[in-house]
Amino acid sequence: MPSTSRLAIVLAAGLGTRMKSDLPKVMHQVAGLSLVGHVLKAVEAAEIGRVAVVVGPDMPELVAEVARRAPQAQCHVQQDRLGTAHAARAAEPAWRDLPDQVLVLFGDTPLVSPQTLARVCARLDEGADVVVLGFDTEDPTGYGRLLTDGDRLLAIREERDASEAERAVRFCNSGIMGFRGTRFAGIIQRIGNANAKGEYYLTDAVEIAAGLGLSVVTERADEWEVQGINTRVQLARVEADYQRQARIAAMENGATLVAPETVHFSHDTRLGRDVVVEPNVVFGPGVEVGDGVTIRSFSHLEEAQVAEGATLGPYARLRPGAEIGAGAHIGNFVEIKNARVETGAKVNHLTYIGDARVGAGANIGAGTITCNYDGFLKHHTDIGAGAFVGSNSTLVAPVTIGDGAYLAAGGVVTENVPADALSLGRARQVVKEGRGAQLKERFARAKAEKKGG
Amino acid sequence: MPSTSRLAIVLAAGLGTRMKSDLPKVMHQVAGLSLVGHVLKAVEAAEIGRVAVVVGPDMPELVAEVARRAPQAQCHVQQDRLGTAHAARAAEPAWRDLPDQVLVLFGDTPLVSPQTLARVCARLDEGADVVVLGFDTEDPTGYGRLLTDGDRLLAIREERDASEAERAVRFCNSGIMGFRGTRFAGIIQRIGNANAKGEYYLTDAVEIAAGLGLSVVTERADEWEVQGINTRVQLARVEADYQRQARIAAMENGATLVAPETVHFSHDTRLGRDVVVEPNVVFGPGVEVGDGVTIRSFSHLEEAQVAEGATLGPYARLRPGAEIGAGAHIGNFVEIKNARVETGAKVNHLTYIGDARVGAGANIGAGTITCNYDGFLKHHTDIGAGAFVGSNSTLVAPVTIGDGAYLAAGGVVTENVPADALSLGRARQVVKEGRGAQLKERFARAKAEKKGG
Amino acid sequence: MPSTSRLAIVLAAGLGTRMKSDLPKVMHQVAGLSLVGHVLKAVEAAEIGRVAVVVGPDMPELVAEVARRAPQAQCHVQQDRLGTAHAARAAEPAWRDLPDQVLVLFGDTPLVSPQTLARVCARLDEGADVVVLGFDTEDPTGYGRLLTDGDRLLAIREERDASEAERAVRFCNSGIMGFRGTRFAGIIQRIGNANAKGEYYLTDAVEIAAGLGLSVVTERADEWEVQGINTRVQLARVEADYQRQARIAAMENGATLVAPETVHFSHDTRLGRDVVVEPNVVFGPGVEVGDGVTIRSFSHLEEAQVAEGATLGPYARLRPGAEIGAGAHIGNFVEIKNARVETGAKVNHLTYIGDARVGAGANIGAGTITCNYDGFLKHHTDIGAGAFVGSNSTLVAPVTIGDGAYLAAGGVVTENVPADALSLGRARQVVKEGRGAQLKERFARAKAEKKGG
Repeated sequence: MPSTSRLAIVLAAGLGTRMKSDLPKVMHQVAGLSLVGHVLKAVEAAEIGRVAVVVGPDMPELVAEVARRAPQAQCHVQQDRLGTAHAARAAEPAWRDLPDQVLVLFGDTPLVSPQTLARVCARLDEGADVVVLGFDTEDPTGYGRLLTDGDRLLAIREERDASEAERAVRFCNSGIMGFRGTRFAGIIQRIGNANAKGEYYLTDAVEIAAGLGLSVVTERADEWEVQGINTRVQLARVEADYQRQARIAAMENGATLVAPETVHFSHDTRLGRDVVVEPNVVFGPGVEVGDGVTIRSFSHLEEAQVAEGATLGPYARLRPGAEIGAGAHIGNFVEIKNARVETGAKVNHLTYIGDARVGAGANIGAGTITCNYDGFLKHHTDIGAGAFVGSNSTLVAPVTIGDGAYLAAGGVVTENVPADALSLGRARQVVKEGRGAQLKERFARAKAEKKGG
Repeated sequence: MPSTSRLAIVLAAGLGTRMKSDLPKVMHQVAGLSLVGHVLKAVEAAEIGRVAVVVGPDMPELVAEVARRAPQAQCHVQQDRLGTAHAARAAEPAWRDLPDQVLVLFGDTPLVSPQTLARVCARLDEGADVVVLGFDTEDPTGYGRLLTDGDRLLAIREERDASEAERAVRFCNSGIMGFRGTRFAGIIQRIGNANAKGEYYLTDAVEIAAGLGLSVVTERADEWEVQGINTRVQLARVEADYQRQARIAAMENGATLVAPETVHFSHDTRLGRDVVVEPNVVFGPGVEVGDGVTIRSFSHLEEAQVAEGATLGPYARLRPGAEIGAGAHIGNFVEIKNARVETGAKVNHLTYIGDARVGAGANIGAGTITCNYDGFLKHHTDIGAGAFVGSNSTLVAPVTIGDGAYLAAGGVVTENVPADALSLGRARQVVKEGRGAQLKERFARAKAEKKGG
Repeated sequence: MPSTSRLAIVLAAGLGTRMKSDLPKVMHQVAGLSLVGHVLKAVEAAEIGRVAVVVGPDMPELVAEVARRAPQAQCHVQQDRLGTAHAARAAEPAWRDLPDQVLVLFGDTPLVSPQTLARVCARLDEGADVVVLGFDTEDPTGYGRLLTDGDRLLAIREERDASEAERAVRFCNSGIMGFRGTRFAGIIQRIGNANAKGEYYLTDAVEIAAGLGLSVVTERADEWEVQGINTRVQLARVEADYQRQARIAAMENGATLVAPETVHFSHDTRLGRDVVVEPNVVFGPGVEVGDGVTIRSFSHLEEAQVAEGATLGPYARLRPGAEIGAGAHIGNFVEIKNARVETGAKVNHLTYIGDARVGAGANIGAGTITCNYDGFLKHHTDIGAGAFVGSNSTLVAPVTIGDGAYLAAGGVVTENVPADALSLGRARQVVKEGRGAQLKERFARAKAEKKGG
């Protein structure tokens, strides 16, 4: 049960001009989920029950994304961009009634883990007034250093103000902070803008809290968790960090990734035990794969479910709504969309199955196409258990093929076929002796004339 | 000629619980071959003529794999798992008659090279009684250290028993050992289980041999050769090591790999000179590619032969039994299975050729499907030299298309077509003026009604 | 305006035996362009107006490549391979009339940047007589060391002749040199072959110039720029360096590469802003992609143009001459060749569109094939705006489908279809009750007999 006495304020108003993008920065994606979506997911997993997101003016896609990912969250617009404390103030309606704890997070720091957030909350539970989340790094250049006495934070020293000894400190400020709720309003209202840029910085909270005799402590995150994103190169680096961990987790859970660095996961991919993933496989969002499934190279899955023991690919494409039954085979150059392929059915080559059911044990020949779209509406194709659909069949939906029916190759099927019936739908073959050679002569002559002309 | 006076005992009984798998550990694969298969291949290449594999109870797939990879090998079941020496004893029927040399290998150490095994044998030939295979490592943590005086092995010191000076030793025990055959029985029967776990350790052989005044020496392997596999993460690491070396070997032999890290080889892939492999190509087992072949991106080959100067892909899939002739072209989204595509023939797009022959210089149009399967049996399609198969043809096997025949597009071909004949098999086109617009109106109305309702 | 008073001599006569190739070394490719092509491109970008390429005897492909990449360049044949100065002398007709500056470059050093060449020219402009291009390296083993006094070059010391102190020097000779034109002839004619191999080395120019009291200086390149290529492993390394930089440049220009290391660029790929490239995409030469385009995984593009807002793939293949209009969709297993797909048109699945136009807003059903080839000539298919082409249609070119026409699924279209007309071209479906089950019994019996037999 998430605690409604904890509030997370997620700062997401930045334009991210260094991204060179028309999208708000936090709408860029890692592992198929927006940056802000990752933060909201971590907040939810850390059981922080109230969420306020500070957005910039005129960011409707961001507001919609927040509504999608965290329906209970409130968006607050920061009209001018005057620093992190100014942004947090824009969320005042959310903290006015003094929740027990207030965490300030950043929409462009997507990998922060729920465990880390929970540790910050725990420190507040234990009595700290302010918690600053730091990280140890090999190369602290550019970061504010956390100057500590044991676990107590003495100051955040910006690099430009640091002495040589202070510059050697490798424990740095992530920007993420937690506050005891009863202290938050008092502290944030004291933050001024008497600095070079005339902005309101949340980091000033540390000095203010110390001046008030409050308890200010640090908590530690791993460096990769608190990487912020300002450029697409950084975005790619965070994506790579995410993927590296997702791959290790998948292997540790009992999946074989033949070439892990060529497998791309989404934030919510779920793989069973003894799943084998060959090189070059992409998992879009919403994929769940059962035990013992083999996914061969160059397969691409999105919003799809695959039951135990099925075999996919190479070159299988599962689109949203694909449900592959136990032991079913989906072969090369096959697209399945919004369709159920039941237990043991086979769709092995060059086929499009859309808006359909393929019954258990049915066999769909190469080149089969379900014509699900008439240009305006989508229609359903129902293929019964054990049916045999001959190669290059064209199934014009809506149409029903009964159990055990047999469709001869190359037919166009517009009418229902009863169970166990045979359906034929092709023109009679006509063979004209010698005429192939004549035709070729004619075509060759045309080519010669064209060149001549 | 492999020496039948040399015996390799391959220990392969481990369950590998850390793999979280229903498969026995040594049945997991690297480069398309089981771990134990790799070891058996190295043993064969090192001309070690006798092989005993120690398996666990109830591992029929492993016994079958051993029979497939090394028909002359004997499997011995180790009922309880009481240590490496206990496992070697389970193979007693194999060493009872005192072969000249006995090597003990591990089924989960797949990369050990034949050259290394041969060096161990050579040391035994030269008079050593026991040879322990070591490796140098940057990080010896967790390994037993080999304490040596020159080349003589004084002791194997487990980490927990090592002094600080001994811990600094970076020459470590791989576990692989060689024995003069006349000494093996005596040594192994002396190994006891007076230790914390009550198990029988083969490493105790060193102390016993020294006590008997025998000559115990070390031999060196590269670290990557003797990496054992206990988890899927380690499996992936060994696979990566294998691939790295296979890629370098392919390039050194005269193939261009445009992006080597994206090309995946099997253990037996053979590429000719001036082969160009574009990014993202997967070679399954059993592939042989002739000189001057170009393999374009996203191609996938298994048990296939490709003759000189052919061009494949992008997106070409060669399945088992594909034989591609000199200068032939296999294009995008094309699947070839159990079929011979002869010299200079072209199968360029969206086609399935299965159980067939495509004669020299024939041209197969886009969308052509051989209907080789009637739901019960596979049938053959034979396409003659120089034939022209029009696009979207459906060839219902068994069927024969004569040399130089011409098949008009879109036909369903169920009867043989003589040489130089023309075959037609499509319905007459009917055009209804204005009716397309009417149809669209009707569909649009249906859509509107559906929304309205 | 390139300066015609500057001459670049590109040495490209080497056989490259270590490549183990039938191709001349400089004809191997990086990023889809020959090595010599890269050098010629850099020379052009550095505005060096005259180019002489020294080729080996009997290298017609190389001469043709030079003509293609730098039409104004002259090729000179070096009959015997007697060293770099000997090669430069083979280009004497190019430098006989004393251009202002002469640069000597290598055809197998493809990454040298125009900026670096321009810096060498600038040094000559400023009065230097000879400029030697050096690079700093961590590991100078095997390179000639540049011994300098400030910026003045004292000597190039080959490793075998170097003292221990000299070996520690990490500033090394790239081989690339620039000469004041009036000095070049005098220097190069003085270079002798009194050395172990009896060859003429251009590096001797330094000592000769110093002896003449001329000004000899160094200029610096990055190490990656001046990597030479002698083996396919080195070729792959240079390719990787090129790709790494191309990926960063694409991201810095405002494209998202979800997994940069899996995207492969050509030397001339151009991506707009807010282009998203999913994992595993290959760009062949000649591709231009507009703003806001999404390119999904496993897509392959060559000589193609994609307008703003289009969506490609996964598994889209654009071949030469593909022009994709704004907002158009090209889906999975679709090949577009020499065809224009206009604004908002959709070609979503398993389709081949070749030598065609697909009008704005048209919808092409799955499995559609344009039959553009009769075995001799290619013919055109013209599909009007808003047309609906039913699934599995076969369009036999030349053929014209009018605006808004509706083609029923599975038809073979050989005659033109007027605007707004309906076209049907399929056999009537015949359904035979119970006959499917009978057929299956017959086939099952045949299978049983075959096994029995």
